[in-house]
Amino acid sequence: MKKVLIANRGEIAVRIIRTLREMNIRSVAVYSVADKDSLHVSLADEACCIGPAKSSESYLNIESILAAAEISGADAVHPGYGFLSETPGFARRCEEEGIIFIGPTSEMMQKMGDKAEARATMRAAGVPVIPGSDGPVETLDEVRAVIEDVGYPVVIKAVSGGGGKGMRFVHDESSLEKSYKEAKKEAKNAFDDDRIYVERYIPKARHIEVQVVGDGNGNAVHLYERDCSIQRNNQKLIEEAPAQILTDESRKSITETTRDAIAKLKYGGAGTVEYLYVEEEDEFHFIEMNTRIQVEHTVTEQITGVDIVRMQVEVALFNELNISQEEIEIDGFAIEVRINAEDSGNNFMPSPGPINMLHFALGRNVRVDTAVYPGYKIPPNYDSMIAKLIVSGRDRSEVINKMTHVLDETVIGPLKTNLDFQYYLMQHPNYNENIVDIKFLTRNEIIEE
Amino acid sequence: MKKVLIANRGEIAVRIIRTLREMNIRSVAVYSVADKDSLHVSLADEACCIGPAKSSESYLNIESILAAAEISGADAVHPGYGFLSETPGFARRCEEEGIIFIGPTSEMMQKMGDKAEARATMRAAGVPVIPGSDGPVETLDEVRAVIEDVGYPVVIKAVSGGGGKGMRFVHDESSLEKSYKEAKKEAKNAFDDDRIYVERYIPKARHIEVQVVGDGNGNAVHLYERDCSIQRNNQKLIEEAPAQILTDESRKSITETTRDAIAKLKYGGAGTVEYLYVEEEDEFHFIEMNTRIQVEHTVTEQITGVDIVRMQVEVALFNELNISQEEIEIDGFAIEVRINAEDSGNNFMPSPGPINMLHFALGRNVRVDTAVYPGYKIPPNYDSMIAKLIVSGRDRSEVINKMTHVLDETVIGPLKTNLDFQYYLMQHPNYNENIVDIKFLTRNEIIEE
Repeated sequence: MKKVLIANRGEIAVRIIRTLREMNIRSVAVYSVADKDSLHVSLADEACCIGPAKSSESYLNIESILAAAEISGADAVHPGYGFLSETPGFARRCEEEGIIFIGPTSEMMQKMGDKAEARATMRAAGVPVIPGSDGPVETLDEVRAVIEDVGYPVVIKAVSGGGGKGMRFVHDESSLEKSYKEAKKEAKNAFDDDRIYVERYIPKARHIEVQVVGDGNGNAVHLYERDCSIQRNNQKLIEEAPAQILTDESRKSITETTRDAIAKLKYGGAGTVEYLYVEEEDEFHFIEMNTRIQVEHTVTEQITGVDIVRMQVEVALFNELNISQEEIEIDGFAIEVRINAEDSGNNFMPSPGPINMLHFALGRNVRVDTAVYPGYKIPPNYDSMIAKLIVSGRDRSEVINKMTHVLDETVIGPLKTNLDFQYYLMQHPNYNENIVDIKFLTRNEIIEE
Repeated sequence: MKKVLIANRGEIAVRIIRTLREMNIRSVAVYSVADKDSLHVSLADEACCIGPAKSSESYLNIESILAAAEISGADAVHPGYGFLSETPGFARRCEEEGIIFIGPTSEMMQKMGDKAEARATMRAAGVPVIPGSDGPVETLDEVRAVIEDVGYPVVIKAVSGGGGKGMRFVHDESSLEKSYKEAKKEAKNAFDDDRIYVERYIPKARHIEVQVVGDGNGNAVHLYERDCSIQRNNQKLIEEAPAQILTDESRKSITETTRDAIAKLKYGGAGTVEYLYVEEEDEFHFIEMNTRIQVEHTVTEQITGVDIVRMQVEVALFNELNISQEEIEIDGFAIEVRINAEDSGNNFMPSPGPINMLHFALGRNVRVDTAVYPGYKIPPNYDSMIAKLIVSGRDRSEVINKMTHVLDETVIGPLKTNLDFQYYLMQHPNYNENIVDIKFLTRNEIIEE
């Protein structure tokens, strides 16, 4: 009999606890003071308060979480997404304490967290990457040599980067030196690591990602791909599976290439390999790998029937990959829409507060992943996502049509949400015709650049 | 552009309206005074009050409903289940008024509503029926002649019967005359029709039913079968699809036989052909045909991916059967559990009232069909079903396990429900091992006979 501590909160903690219950594995919730009335706390078999509302003192506090694991006698920790889920130091401390970390090894996380190393690693494993430097570039001359090769425009990125920090787009020689220096300085300030690398800038692309699960011993499967091109400030808003834009041949090529690379790396756990996809050239370029479960794993579950959280647990606790590639097939189409507590009429300002009106459009082909309930109060301390509405169907247009009605029927209030905004997007003619790229919102002048 | 009036209330009205919305067909709700705050009223494009709370003056009032159809300009009426859904007179009045009745013709409903005629019709169409009289029996001597043929025990049934009225089990000659007279008298009182017929009594059987849809022109498909053996007072409590007990061969035989009969009868619309299945002999015996959508159609939708309400509308409005038999395949397993507002600790007494606490266990593989919302008050005037919890999965044991957790997580209060009772059933060893028949509850001494 095993026991798993969930080092997370909200809908993903609830999602994980439900699968653990189905596996007859005991669950331990951790929570901050702000989350004492949360669904994940009442749903878990045990719950342990790990600190004040502030994330840095609770959900990001490695030693508090390890203490909770020790007190509760948990054998394993599931990190969910966000928080400590991609912090190699957390995985390492789990390893040191003899607690199973449900995810890849700290070494693998480190490797994928270093963007230049991830790029080099994936290229070596046969994955197509964006033309650019082989690794970190040390001098301005080295940058110039790379640009000679790949041509303008380019983007300079921080090796430890994230959230656009330490990133500069360079269109010609005139601004190169300035951008180079700014990027290094910003990277130093943000990550205490001023190493940068250079890639060709791709002005128009889709975000397509491949879901994989490896057993850590050289076996891996892919669960096909997702199209997550509709984003605002690099934050995904709508996710689809499969990517309708791909031909069967392209799909086969990118999913198998990705899986083979993951197997070669002896990756253990679930992960997502993210690509920029240039439609016109039918070309994929590796962006980064996420070494954790993702928000949008649901659409993949809907089209494959697979429980990805269960696979994570099975791989980590039992060293088993209980499904073969041949058993994983695409059936239908699914879209996930993220509902956030934010005022889309007022520059998407977060709008925490009590939920007194709550009605989801349930029934056939609708899945709702949420941790809210009538009377629940969204705390201001964490991210603003409050529900994921997932609709399945035979094809993209059927699902879009149904999602439109689901959004129309859903009531969440009195706090402000982006329900109306998502309803607008679902009806946008370009979205309907799948004329989409990662700059959809600004390109269609839905929001300002 | 069409407009459909839904002559029903509760979850099935909501269910139908959602499909109409997806089909871009306008919907008209009708409601009694007791239902003015109902979900189906707010969800429909239009709504029309048809009378007081009492069903006989509202949901059973044919002329009120036809007036609502006329006022709203509805082209068609969907009767749902219960209420007027199997009243040939309602279908006939729709036909007279030039309103499309979403269901079979009044003539077909009449034929199937007369149990002796249904039996004869189905037998002539090649469906196995319980050995018994060829039609109504007129005298006690005729009854004796039938029994000579089929042997004791037998059951005497009213031709217009339903709900056990006018039904008598006869185990030997000594009680025959008395039972015969009682049955006729009871039938006369209940249905103003004292005709009776005789069948062999089958002491132990499962309830297995085949879902069909015909186009009215001699084409029909089946959507496989359901096992609905767990019942209390002939009221289904738990429904499963497919029937795990059947071999592939038995399944093929009964589903194809049923479909062929339906096609031969030129049946138009969705319907369910119900059988008693005797496990030991692998034998099916026709009980009756329901000429409407059923409560438990959901489990069939879950395993086939088909929207049965959409098929009903397509057949009735557009004369199309948009799917071929080859396209309908079984994928996985599904169970539906009916949650009723009744006190399972106090002889299942109805317990209407306000719902102030409401939490459904949502997420992966869970479908909830309901019309309740937080603050909604269950009126005392109608049936006590408040939600259908439907869980899907790979196989029966996975689904039972998951349903157990779903029931455990669900909160509906403060009114009493049968959540605890269903939770108990889900964990019953005989249920788990599928040692089940229609007398499961009394046979296992869960309730008194």
